[in-house]
Order: sequence, then C-alpha cells, then structure tokens
Amino acid sequence: MASSEDIVLSAVLNLLSAFAFLVAFAILRLQPINDRVYFSKWYLKGIRASPRSSGTFVKKFVNLDCRTYIRFLNWMPAALRMPEPELIDHAGLDSAVYIRIYLLGLKIFVPLALLSFAVLVPVNWSGKSLEQTEGLTFSTVDKLSISNVPDASKKFWAHLVMAYVVTFWTCYILYKEYHIITTMRLQFLASENRRPDQFTVLVRNVPPDLDESVSEHVEHFFCVNHPDHYLTHQVVYNANNLAKLVEKKKSYKNWLTYYQTKYERNPKIKPKTKTGVWGLWGKTVDAIDYYTTEIEKLSKEETIEREKVMSDPKAIVPAAFVSFKSRWGAAVCAQTQQSSNPTIWLTQWAPEPRDVYWNNLSIPFVELNVRKLLMTVAFFFLTFFFMIPIAFVQSLASIDGIENKLPVLRPLIQMEVVKSFIQGVLPGIILKIFLVLLPMILMAMSKIEGYTSLSSLDRRSATKYHFFILVNVFLGSIITGAAFEQLQRFVDEPPSEIPKTVGVAMPLKATFFITYIMVDGWAGIAAEILRLVPFVMFHLKNTFLVKTDQDREQATDPGSLNFSVSEPRIQLYFLLGLVYSVVTPILLPFIIVFFAFSYMVFRHQIINVYDQKYESGASFWPDVHRRILTGLVISQLLLLGLLSTKNIAKSTPVMIALPVLTIWFHIFCKGRYESAFVKFPLQDAMVKDTLERATEPTLNLKAYLKDAYVHPVFKGVELDRPSAVDDEENNPLVPTKRSRRSSKSHSEEGV
Amino acid sequence: MASSEDIVLSAVLNLLSAFAFLVAFAILRLQPINDRVYFSKWYLKGIRASPRSSGTFVKKFVNLDCRTYIRFLNWMPAALRMPEPELIDHAGLDSAVYIRIYLLGLKIFVPLALLSFAVLVPVNWSGKSLEQTEGLTFSTVDKLSISNVPDASKKFWAHLVMAYVVTFWTCYILYKEYHIITTMRLQFLASENRRPDQFTVLVRNVPPDLDESVSEHVEHFFCVNHPDHYLTHQVVYNANNLAKLVEKKKSYKNWLTYYQTKYERNPKIKPKTKTGVWGLWGKTVDAIDYYTTEIEKLSKEETIEREKVMSDPKAIVPAAFVSFKSRWGAAVCAQTQQSSNPTIWLTQWAPEPRDVYWNNLSIPFVELNVRKLLMTVAFFFLTFFFMIPIAFVQSLASIDGIENKLPVLRPLIQMEVVKSFIQGVLPGIILKIFLVLLPMILMAMSKIEGYTSLSSLDRRSATKYHFFILVNVFLGSIITGAAFEQLQRFVDEPPSEIPKTVGVAMPLKATFFITYIMVDGWAGIAAEILRLVPFVMFHLKNTFLVKTDQDREQATDPGSLNFSVSEPRIQLYFLLGLVYSVVTPILLPFIIVFFAFSYMVFRHQIINVYDQKYESGASFWPDVHRRILTGLVISQLLLLGLLSTKNIAKSTPVMIALPVLTIWFHIFCKGRYESAFVKFPLQDAMVKDTLERATEPTLNLKAYLKDAYVHPVFKGVELDRPSAVDDEENNPLVPTKRSRRSSKSHSEEGV
Repeated sequence: MASSEDIVLSAVLNLLSAFAFLVAFAILRLQPINDRVYFSKWYLKGIRASPRSSGTFVKKFVNLDCRTYIRFLNWMPAALRMPEPELIDHAGLDSAVYIRIYLLGLKIFVPLALLSFAVLVPVNWSGKSLEQTEGLTFSTVDKLSISNVPDASKKFWAHLVMAYVVTFWTCYILYKEYHIITTMRLQFLASENRRPDQFTVLVRNVPPDLDESVSEHVEHFFCVNHPDHYLTHQVVYNANNLAKLVEKKKSYKNWLTYYQTKYERNPKIKPKTKTGVWGLWGKTVDAIDYYTTEIEKLSKEETIEREKVMSDPKAIVPAAFVSFKSRWGAAVCAQTQQSSNPTIWLTQWAPEPRDVYWNNLSIPFVELNVRKLLMTVAFFFLTFFFMIPIAFVQSLASIDGIENKLPVLRPLIQMEVVKSFIQGVLPGIILKIFLVLLPMILMAMSKIEGYTSLSSLDRRSATKYHFFILVNVFLGSIITGAAFEQLQRFVDEPPSEIPKTVGVAMPLKATFFITYIMVDGWAGIAAEILRLVPFVMFHLKNTFLVKTDQDREQATDPGSLNFSVSEPRIQLYFLLGLVYSVVTPILLPFIIVFFAFSYMVFRHQIINVYDQKYESGASFWPDVHRRILTGLVISQLLLLGLLSTKNIAKSTPVMIALPVLTIWFHIFCKGRYESAFVKFPLQDAMVKDTLERATEPTLNLKAYLKDAYVHPVFKGVELDRPSAVDDEENNPLVPTKRSRRSSKSHSEEGV
Repeated sequence: MASSEDIVLSAVLNLLSAFAFLVAFAILRLQPINDRVYFSKWYLKGIRASPRSSGTFVKKFVNLDCRTYIRFLNWMPAALRMPEPELIDHAGLDSAVYIRIYLLGLKIFVPLALLSFAVLVPVNWSGKSLEQTEGLTFSTVDKLSISNVPDASKKFWAHLVMAYVVTFWTCYILYKEYHIITTMRLQFLASENRRPDQFTVLVRNVPPDLDESVSEHVEHFFCVNHPDHYLTHQVVYNANNLAKLVEKKKSYKNWLTYYQTKYERNPKIKPKTKTGVWGLWGKTVDAIDYYTTEIEKLSKEETIEREKVMSDPKAIVPAAFVSFKSRWGAAVCAQTQQSSNPTIWLTQWAPEPRDVYWNNLSIPFVELNVRKLLMTVAFFFLTFFFMIPIAFVQSLASIDGIENKLPVLRPLIQMEVVKSFIQGVLPGIILKIFLVLLPMILMAMSKIEGYTSLSSLDRRSATKYHFFILVNVFLGSIITGAAFEQLQRFVDEPPSEIPKTVGVAMPLKATFFITYIMVDGWAGIAAEILRLVPFVMFHLKNTFLVKTDQDREQATDPGSLNFSVSEPRIQLYFLLGLVYSVVTPILLPFIIVFFAFSYMVFRHQIINVYDQKYESGASFWPDVHRRILTGLVISQLLLLGLLSTKNIAKSTPVMIALPVLTIWFHIFCKGRYESAFVKFPLQDAMVKDTLERATEPTLNLKAYLKDAYVHPVFKGVELDRPSAVDDEENNPLVPTKRSRRSSKSHSEEGV
C-alpha cells in the first residue's frame, strides 16, 4: 500500500507533468504553424485566416514576439470569459451542456468536501483505532479514513448523518441542474430557426404493397390519415454503390487540381503519372489529360448509377422522411401510433439531416429484436469474459508461444532486448490495444442494434461503456480478480454479503484511486489540451501529403467531443467522489481538481477546437442524470455494507431508506423532466407555427424541404467542398444562427 | 407426507363434495323462488319475467315438474353452446376474454400433460432411485417424480429437453393467444357504436390561472392548441355533499312508494311512521304525508346545493373531460404531450363514463409521486411482515390474553367449550378474516395511489395480490416459515443458492399442492356456481327487507367477475402447472380438471348471472400475459436450481438460456402487441370518422356529448332507476348493441 509520502510524491510528479504539458501547449499554440491544430473551429467557421499568408518566411512558422509568451497561461481566463448564451450560439447546446457536467461535479463536491473536512476528518483522526491495533501498517490517508474509527463507536453516527447529507445535497443539485438543462433545451428548441427536422418525421417499416411503390404507398397512407397536415415525403435510397463512385470522383478531382497547380507553377514540365495503384506503377501518361478523361468516365458512370438507383424499386428501402405543413402536424405524427399493427408505420422525430445514420433505416421489427437479444448476450460476455481471449492472445505472444508457432523467429527472439520486450511490454500492449479498440467495438455493437441516428448511437455506446468501466475498473480494482471471477462470486455469495465484501475492501483502495485520479484524470486532461495525436497527424500530413489548399483543410482534424467515451469516464469520477465522500474524504480534493481543470480545458476546446458532428439539443442529459444516481445508490449500498461490519445498532434500517429514496427521486425526476428530451409539446409547436405564419406568410415550405433529407451522395454538387463546411454553413437548406454570428467573438481568444 | 392412498381418498372426497354442490345447484336453480339469484343477468336485461307472477301459489316457489330434474346437468352443454361473438355481445369483451384465461390453461397444459405422461412418467418410474435408498418413506407420487431419478443419470436429459418443450410450447400458445386477443380487441373497438369516450380525453392537472376559471382556461388552451378539432369540454365538480343528499332523497322516495303500496292494498289503515332513526322511535306521524314533505324539503336543499356546486369556483377540481370533433382529434390529444411542463395538462383517454373513479381526478403531480412511494413501502411491509400484527392479535385472543385484559370474562372463558373454541378456532379465524379483508386493503391502497378508472384500479390491485400470493402461498408453502423469515433467508443466501433451496424442496411439496388444488380449486369453483352468499342474502332480504318491486330488484346482487381477486388466483394454478410439468407431471391432470371445470362454470356465470360494472375492452390482457411468463421464468429457475444439485454436467448453461429467451420473448411481445391495449391508432380512428361522416352527415355531436361525463349525481332524473339498468340500457347516451339484441338467446338456458 502506498504511504502518504508516496502520494505526495506522486501528486508532485503528476502536477509537474501536467504543468509541463500546459507549458508545451502554451508555447505550441502560439506558433503560426500550429494555428490550424489549436484553432481549427475558427478556420471551419471561416473567421480566422491563416497567419502564414503574410510576414517573413520564419514568421510564418515560429512566433518571435516575446510579449505573447509572457502571458502564456491567459488562455485559461479567456476560456472562462465567453458567456454561456454566446457559447451555446458558438458551439451548440450539446457542447455547452457537456461541460456543465464538470461544473456539476464542482457543485456537488466542493461543499461536500468542505463539510467532510470540517466534520469527518476530525472524527476519523480522533478515532485512533489503527494506532491501538498492534502490528498494523497504515498511512496518513488511512488515519483520516473511516477505518480509524473503532468498532461500535458512537462516532459512526457522524458518518450516517453525512451519508444523508451527501444524498440530499446530490439530489438537490441534480434536481436543480435537470431543471436548468430542461429550460435550456426548451429555450434552445424554441429559439432555433426553421430547420427541416422540425417538420419531418422518420417513418420506418413501411409495409410492402403489391400494387404500389413505397413512395406511392407512403403518400397515400399519410394523405388519408393526416389529410390536413401532410405535405411531402422523401424515400430513402440504398445508395452504397453510388457513394463509392462519388468518393472516387472526388479523389480524382483532387489529384487533377494538384497537377494543375503544379503545372501552373512550373509550366516547363508537363506532370506525368502512372495508371496503376496510387500512381506508383503502370503506364506513364500525361497526368492532367489522364485525370480529365477519368473524371469524365466516372461522371458518366455516376449518372447511370444515379438513374438506376432512382428508377429501380429495389433500391428503395421501406422507410421515408415524411414532412408536414406545420410543426404541430409533425409533432402529432411523431408521437402517435399510426396503424393497429404497432410494428409497421413506425414514426419518430426525424434526426437532423447530418445526424441520420443511413444504414439502419430499414431493419424489420423481428430482426431488430433478434439483433438486440444477440448484442445483449454478446455485451454480457464482453464485459465479464473479455479477459479470456486477451489472456489467450497474451499466451500466444509469449516467448514459448512464438517459438512454437514460428520456429523461424527463434534466433530473433532469443536476443536479450527482444526477449525482455516480449516478456515485459507485449502483454500490457495487447491489453491496452483492446482497451483502445473497446469503444469502437461497443459502437459497432450499437450499430448492429439498429439505432437510426448518430446521437442515439453515441448515447447507447456510452451506456455500454459505463457498465464496462463500472465492472472492470471500479469493482475490478476494489475486489482484485478478473470480471468473471467476480461474477462467480456475486452469484455464489448472499446479496447481503456483496456490499460487505466490497464495502470493507473499499477504504483500503483509497490511495490507489487517488493515484488513478492523478494519472488518468489530471495527466489525461493535460494531454487532451495538447491534442498530441491530431497535432502529429497534421504535421505529418502537411509535410508529406498535402497537395492543395483543400487538402490542407482536410488535414486538420478538428475532432469533436467524443461523448460515448468521455462521459462514462467522467461518471467514474462521480462514482469515486460519492463513494469516498463519507469513507475517505481526503480523496475529494483530487476529484475537485480534476473537475475544475477539466472544465477549463474542455471549455477552451469547445470554443477553439472541436466541431460537433451533429446537434441533439442535450438529449443525453437523462442518461447523465441516471448514471450519477446509479453511482449514488452504489455508494449507499457499499457504505451500508461497510457499516454493517462495524457493530453499530440500527445502522442498516437507517441506511436502507437512502437507496429507496434515491430510486424514488429518480422516478420522480423522470416523470418531471424526461419527456422534455423525448417528446415535443404541441403548445410549443403551435406557438412557433403561429409566429412563422404571421412573419412569413408567403413561405414555400415544400420547396424548402425538397432536398433536406436526400442521402448525402445525391447532393452531388456540394460534395466537392469539405463536408464539415458543407454541413455548417454553405448548405442553403440549413441556415443556422452561426453563419450570421458577428466575428467579434473572435476577439475572445487572447492571442 | 401424504401417501398416494391419501391423495386418492382426498380426490374422491373432493369430487363427491363438488358433485354434491353441483346437484344442489341443479336443484336450487330450477326453483322459481331462486330464479333471480341464478339468472340475474337476464332480469337486468329485462328479458326474463319473474316466473312467480303466474301459476298456483306453490308453483310460485317450488318447481314440481319432474322432467326438468332429469336433465339436471344440462346447464353445462348449455353454457358451452353460446358462440363467442354472441357471448361478447351478451356479456362484454372483458368477460369473454376473462374465461379465455381458463381456456388458455387447457391449451397449454393438455398437450404438455400428454407428452409428460408419455415421456417423463416412464423415465421417472424406471429411475428406481427411491427404492434403492434404504430407510426412506415415499409415495407413488414421489416414484413418478424427478426425485426417483438417481444422481448424475443420463435420464435427466429427458427433463432438460422437456423444459425446453414446456418453454417453447407455452410461449407459442401465449403468442397465438396474444394475437387473437389483440385482434378481438381491435375488432371490438372498431365495431363499437358511437360512444362518448371515443371522442373524449381526460385532462388532469390543469394549472391554476389568476384571471380565468378552470373551465375558461381549458377552453382557451384547447381552442389554441387543437383549433381544428376541439369541440367542447366538461369540468369535474367536487360533489360529495350533493351525492349524499341525492342518496337520502332516493331512500325516502323508496319508503314513500312502500307506504303508498301498503295504503293501496289496505286503504283502511293509514300507515304511520316515527320520525327518529330507522323509524324506530320519535314522534309518530302519518307516513305518506311525512315522506312527501321530507322529499320536498330535500328537493329544495338539493337544488340549492346543486346551484352552489355549479356556481362555486372552489367546487371545480382542476380536471376536465375534453371532447373533440372526431376520434382522430381525440386520439391525437390523448397520445401527445401538450405543454413543455410534463406535469400539467396531462392527457389520457377518458375511461368510459361508468368506469370513471371520480375521487382521484385532481391529485397534483408531486403528491401522486409521494403517494406511490408510500404505498410501495406499505405494500412491501404488508407482504413480508403481515404475520407480525396477526400473531399479535392472535396472542391477544388467546386464553391468557383475554383473561389478562378482561378479567370479567374469566368465568365464561373457563368453560370447556369456549376454551377449546378460543384455542382451536379463533387464531385460524383471525388469519382468515385478514385474508378475506386483504383484497379490500389492496384495493384501498390502489385507490390511494391515485388511479382514475375502476378498470385500472382492478388491474393494479390484481398485480399486488399476485405478488402477495406468490410470496405467501407459493413460496410460503414450499419453504415453510413466515414471509419475513424467507426475506431474511433471501438476503442472506447467495443468489445461486435460492433456486437450489426452493428447487430441492419443490418435488416434496407436490402432494400438498395436489390437495390444495382440490380443496381450493375444485371445491371453490363448485361453491362459486352455487353462489351461496348472494343466495342467502337474497332470501334474507326478500323475507325481511323487501318492501317494493324496486327493492326486490335491488336485493338481487348479480355480482361481477372480481378481476382483482380471481385472476391472481388463476395465476397460482398456471405457476403450479409450469413448475411441476417437468418435476412431477402427475400434478397436471388436477390442474387440467380445475381449468376445464372453471371454464364451464364461469362461462355459465357470465351468461346467466354476472353483470360487469364497466367494459375496458380486455385491457387487462398484457398483465395476464406478463404474469404467466413470470411463472414460466420462476419454473425455469427452480428447475435450474434442482438440476444443479443432481450432478449433471452442463445442465446450468443449458438451462440458463431459457430464462434469457423467455424474458426476450416478453419484450418482443410487449413491442408487438401491447400498444394495441394502450394507444388508439390514428388509422382506425380515421376509418371510423370517415364512415360516420358518410352515414350520418347531420349528426349533432355536441348535443350527443353534452352530458356524457357529468358526475353521476347530476343525472338526477335517472338515479331513480336501479343503476345497473341505468348503465346498461336506458341511458340514451350510451346505446349499446345489447339493447338491440333479439331475445332469442334466452332460449339457450335449457330450463
């Protein structure tokens, strides 16, 4: 067990490394050459021009202005300065609400930490149980924890009262936050400009009809059943082939531009290329001519394929985007059941166009259910038994394994360096590779489950990842052993024993988790702001691959908040905070530093870097709320288990009321707020409709909605531009506020 | 433990007693004096005239026609003869679907019994494990059960396969049945005549408004948000006082009729009465004059109270019945969210007028949540700890207890007869009284939970009662001991041990449950058809209380299917059948006899006797389906536990797939069919609307709906008739098919 000196040392080291990261970031971000990496959002918005276009050659790459280095930490106040409404305007509600999760952590844990330090730390310290037990090694952390209070002591009442305070304070803050987020969401939806998804409903499982095409069937059905409201609809094409052609043409056009630029700069040498793969072998031909003819050929193919898809009834999947004359009509259709058979004519709000996951729009009802069953079973095995294949691969990658399978490599393996690498590092790397791949595996599983929008895929993956972390990181660290051993234990032990086993082991792991918070939390966040991977990638691409300006734009990966990965990780810190707030309050300051630091970093990132792929209007909040409450209930059960071993009369009845109340609070909040994230109230729809009818009586809604939900490949002309810009601004069908925002917010950056 | 001879004896005794009941019923029902008890439904329908009005004096009371006695059992084929569509027409969908539960039992268990007897009984019999174990007493029942198969025998694979057969067969039958019931419900709803609830939505939690009354507020809100569909609305009055006055006036009118009849028959004596309570003391006055003036007085009071309620804004609760111009409009409003605050303007389908539970229409959102929490906690304690107060009362009612508390009674108590009564019978009676009161307690709890219709109250109480029976009858019989001791055990034992403990004890209890089925099931059903309590009550009332013809009509209690009590009891038989189908197949024939006998008896009862209080369109079916599946999962877990003690390799992985598949099947069925019981599809609404518009273009819907949802006390004029007739036929607002039904179905009775 780590002593308190170890922890102090570790804290200092971690603080130093975090500080080093920060200094590196502060220096790197001031170099013009890195501008696109650290301010990519502004480039995407078209507000920031490249600083490399003016000045001397050196100045293009390195910032020589010393004054800017002095103020190297002032990105922090700058990040905090943008007011929230402007932030929502600038980065979207999803991002603005996402960073509020960190703020929520501060709101919950700062007062709890103060109270715990004022009450529990003195109580624990004066317990002196550890000192009186002979032959026990313990650290200062343990002396400040509940372990230091002797059995059957009256002092435990302080902990019981504190457990109640933690529960009520957390619930109070959560309730207030839910209220605020709901209000923000409703305001956001109400203030939004006209958008196609407000008028549109996604209809799935259109039943087959012998006499009519899907399109006719949809039209007739809605003309009959929503006669006063139905406006138009768009069928969904299965356009995978076409998408490939469009992609190929785009790449060829890019090469053409490259060679044309090259030829213009140096008109003496006519550029050549080879016709084989990647232009590396094959016949040498004139590059410009070659690509021009190829593009023409592809254009023809594309036209043929396009017509084929448009005319072939088999290329139409049994789903459609149905648009209505008013938001009221769409709200009605999305919330009601259409047919007496509830497995056909399924309606739901259409996701916004860029949020649609096109591949999943046509899964039949029974298949959907079978897929969900299979994925549930697969996820169960993944969570509890993933160590088995990992261990198998690790055994293959051992010295003996490789020698057996590939005797050729024997001389190489027996070299000392290779040997120690295989023995020491390879098993760890294999596990690490799995953990890096895990979110992708979970996302693939969610895709198989058949969700129809990117936002719901993200939410679903996050739920899976959260459970995985709960079992394998939290429980796995407290009770050592692989997950399937824990599962065995959970099945074989009485339910009353589990909280005891875990609860008793929990205080002993406090030092481990403190270290974990510093390494994974603090250093992780500091690495986050440096954006090491995009940074390296950008410079590699810029040096070796970038041919045209368009390429350079694409080389910048603005990235986005990866909700499905990062939210479950935050939840681990909430869980740790709630669990240890009563048991080992000394852990709380570390959590608070994590939340405060993360809040600042992510606020900076969403202002300057990230570019969200879609906007769901904070529809993930009910999940966040539920998971924090799950953490709260876990913390209560563990404390119940721990206290039940301490011989305190009546602790169990006093404690058992807490989870009951917490679960009730969850049900209450669900009833009170959740529908704001799922349904769209008719009153609000009517208000917006009426307002619009008054202000724009001549609006041609049909023309406006005509191409909104066309599969991306059919927006042929627009595909030549980078897709992010396409989605954000230049798409004439989705005018967002952002394009009209003045450039004054640019001054926020403090450069 | 009962030997097989005991069981045969018990079966013979029970069959004899059931037969005696049947003979008694066959004789009693042929006596004209009992006609109203055994054919009350036909009286209510006004089809059957009293046979007492003609013939000689003796013939009025006793049937002397010997020929009818010969065919004394032919009510049975008569009960089965009425085809199902006519039955739905005659008794309503609720009743017709209710008896299908018994039919479902037959469909599931008859093939399973045949298969079990063909396969498992020989396998078990040839096991000979019990005979080889020395010093063991066992019965023939045990020799036919799984206990007779030796440990680690390959024969257990027959049981494993059988467990799969049971699961798949049950699921298949359940799936088919859900499909049939759904179709029946949809047809029933589609074929129904115009009814007010098709156009009406119940709106609760109308927010308070400073400037407007509730009525104005409702009207404005719906005029704005459903402009094309809103028609009219009715506010809900808090009319408890008025209801009392109306009730009093009704009783006075009844007395007046009585005295007037008396006076007409014997004009010499002017009838007198006393002004005090029940006419027993006080001043003697002329009865007819007295009641005439009293009724006049009451009428005036009633008018004043009526006006007061109508004009006092405080007498209006914040709820309303809002009616729409079309079924489409109502369907839309019932299924959508109205306001961005989901706790106000809550809409749901209006229950049909006689199904409304008026007292619960105005509970605020937070209070509703608190009530549900309290009732959940109370129900938990009721289920697991009810034995504690019972035991306390029993101890008070012991000899010592009574002697201590009431020394006066000592001489009485020390009499031998009283003493043995107190010791032997009183504790049992106290428990029995509690069990009789239990459904009422559960109903009261459901009322506190705030459900707004009688049908949902019934469903909710049934859920509670089912859980109570599961814990206290099923588990309580297998693992002996009070429920709270079981609870303790469940908490203290590993989850893997519980199915083992229960599973191992289960085969030993087969003989007990066989006896239980005969005593509670067979004899209970035979008593049901005799209608002993209503029979005695009718004759008591008829002899002592009946004054007028109206009184006689009211003295007949037609009764109704008490869903909240009888459905959970059926579920116990499903559970027993599923649990023992693999373990002790010999139990199945007893279950089959129960289902067959019940089916016949209840079919007879719903044709001839029962009169349903409301019609919910079989909306209870999802509950029935879910509970049978719960039973199936329990049976699988217990078998898993039992087999895991038998040393069979791989039995657990093979068995664990079954509950997973069953739960998945439940989710699948829920998605596939449940919405037909909860929502009303727009397509069906539109079809009915269109049809109606074509056939009755001049319909004045507003006038039709005007008084549909008036509180019963405001239907002053109609209250003078017995309420059942009022609801069924004479209510001009609810024309049902039944009133148009020809009287030919009367010939079905075979009298």
